[in-house]
Amino acid sequence: MDNLNLGRHISGQFNVDLENVRNKVLQMGGLVEKQLADALTAVVKGDVELARLVVSTDQQVNRLDVQIDEEVTQIIAKRQPAASDLRLMVSITKIITDLERIGDTAKKVAAIIVSGDASQHSPLLTRLEAMGRHVSQMLHDVLDAFARLDIDAALVVHREDAKVDLEYEGLFREMTTYMMEDPRSIPKVLEVVGAVRSLERIGDRCQNIAEYIVYMVKGKIIRHVHGEELEALLR
Amino acid sequence: MDNLNLGRHISGQFNVDLENVRNKVLQMGGLVEKQLADALTAVVKGDVELARLVVSTDQQVNRLDVQIDEEVTQIIAKRQPAASDLRLMVSITKIITDLERIGDTAKKVAAIIVSGDASQHSPLLTRLEAMGRHVSQMLHDVLDAFARLDIDAALVVHREDAKVDLEYEGLFREMTTYMMEDPRSIPKVLEVVGAVRSLERIGDRCQNIAEYIVYMVKGKIIRHVHGEELEALLR
Repeated sequence: MDNLNLGRHISGQFNVDLENVRNKVLQMGGLVEKQLADALTAVVKGDVELARLVVSTDQQVNRLDVQIDEEVTQIIAKRQPAASDLRLMVSITKIITDLERIGDTAKKVAAIIVSGDASQHSPLLTRLEAMGRHVSQMLHDVLDAFARLDIDAALVVHREDAKVDLEYEGLFREMTTYMMEDPRSIPKVLEVVGAVRSLERIGDRCQNIAEYIVYMVKGKIIRHVHGEELEALLR
Repeated sequence: MDNLNLGRHISGQFNVDLENVRNKVLQMGGLVEKQLADALTAVVKGDVELARLVVSTDQQVNRLDVQIDEEVTQIIAKRQPAASDLRLMVSITKIITDLERIGDTAKKVAAIIVSGDASQHSPLLTRLEAMGRHVSQMLHDVLDAFARLDIDAALVVHREDAKVDLEYEGLFREMTTYMMEDPRSIPKVLEVVGAVRSLERIGDRCQNIAEYIVYMVKGKIIRHVHGEELEALLR
């Protein structure tokens, strides 16, 4: 951990505890990354087994979610850290909530293959995959920003979400046209619509995590701040 | 506060601080309840002004969200509460995150009226309204359960979410048929689909809040536990 802002606040045993918790968060993040990647591959390849793996991985994610929450509470009780370190601990409990729900959302993406009837719409699935890779990259980058407590990297992810939103809108329009041209396709395309919307929400959650990272390191709450006001806050 | 489980842990100044924070959470909850109710009325009556009010109320909600988070951190730092009280404080920061996002979701519901073209689909809007009232009641009840730290009431809300999910599925099927019968209606019905999905997610978030209430009072994490296992955990 080479971040100076953070290094100032912490020392000794608290530091060790914090490292432990951070490693668990990264382990949980790795599992969720894998869930999302597997969900996308499952959908594109129509691989039902892989889709089932996404669902079963959830148990491990949930266990870590509960463990980390308990550990954070115990660390605060035992070490009675100062306000700046508390901020860090509270942020971690919020980050894992978003991570856990990204895992849940990956399950929803995988569900369109378990229900088994989306594979005919390969042009749409290719677009879905592209958006999925974009969101996966955001997730990877925001976990990386968390590992290094790197505000700049977190802010890059934060800004990236606007691109995902645009991508979503374009894809949504395309799917609407698709359905209007071939009304029999409606039920199946609606499944893809649901999966694409899930991906868009994963982008939102990566943005949330980026906000918590900024709060952890800078103590500044940026989640309701936009544009120039945001630039000024971070200067 | 007449809950014995809780009464055991807390005393003196911490108690006063906690009361203050709880009142702010309820104030925030009241605003979000109003956002949701206004969003539904706006959609059903086609009231653009009211829809704009939902959007502008968000600033107040956001301010409380930030304030409560800051206060919780300060209280922990100042009072260094025991593990059970910490659980309480950490739960509060998670509850307000869900509340704030319910407000955001209410904005998305209201947006279908701001865009101004859903009002022709009155049969669907009537169904949307019914589902909206259902979810509003859940929100009201879960805030009430929070105010009274009433686990039983929280568990009633927790179970209620399954009914909302069924309601959503039924409405979704109905909307699919609607679109297949009249493909020109697709873009407008899709807006309603989005709003209905938003309502379903509000139900999920009420369920999350119910889980945090159980955790606050009982110290038991029920968010990944279902059916008989859940009954056993709560005995």
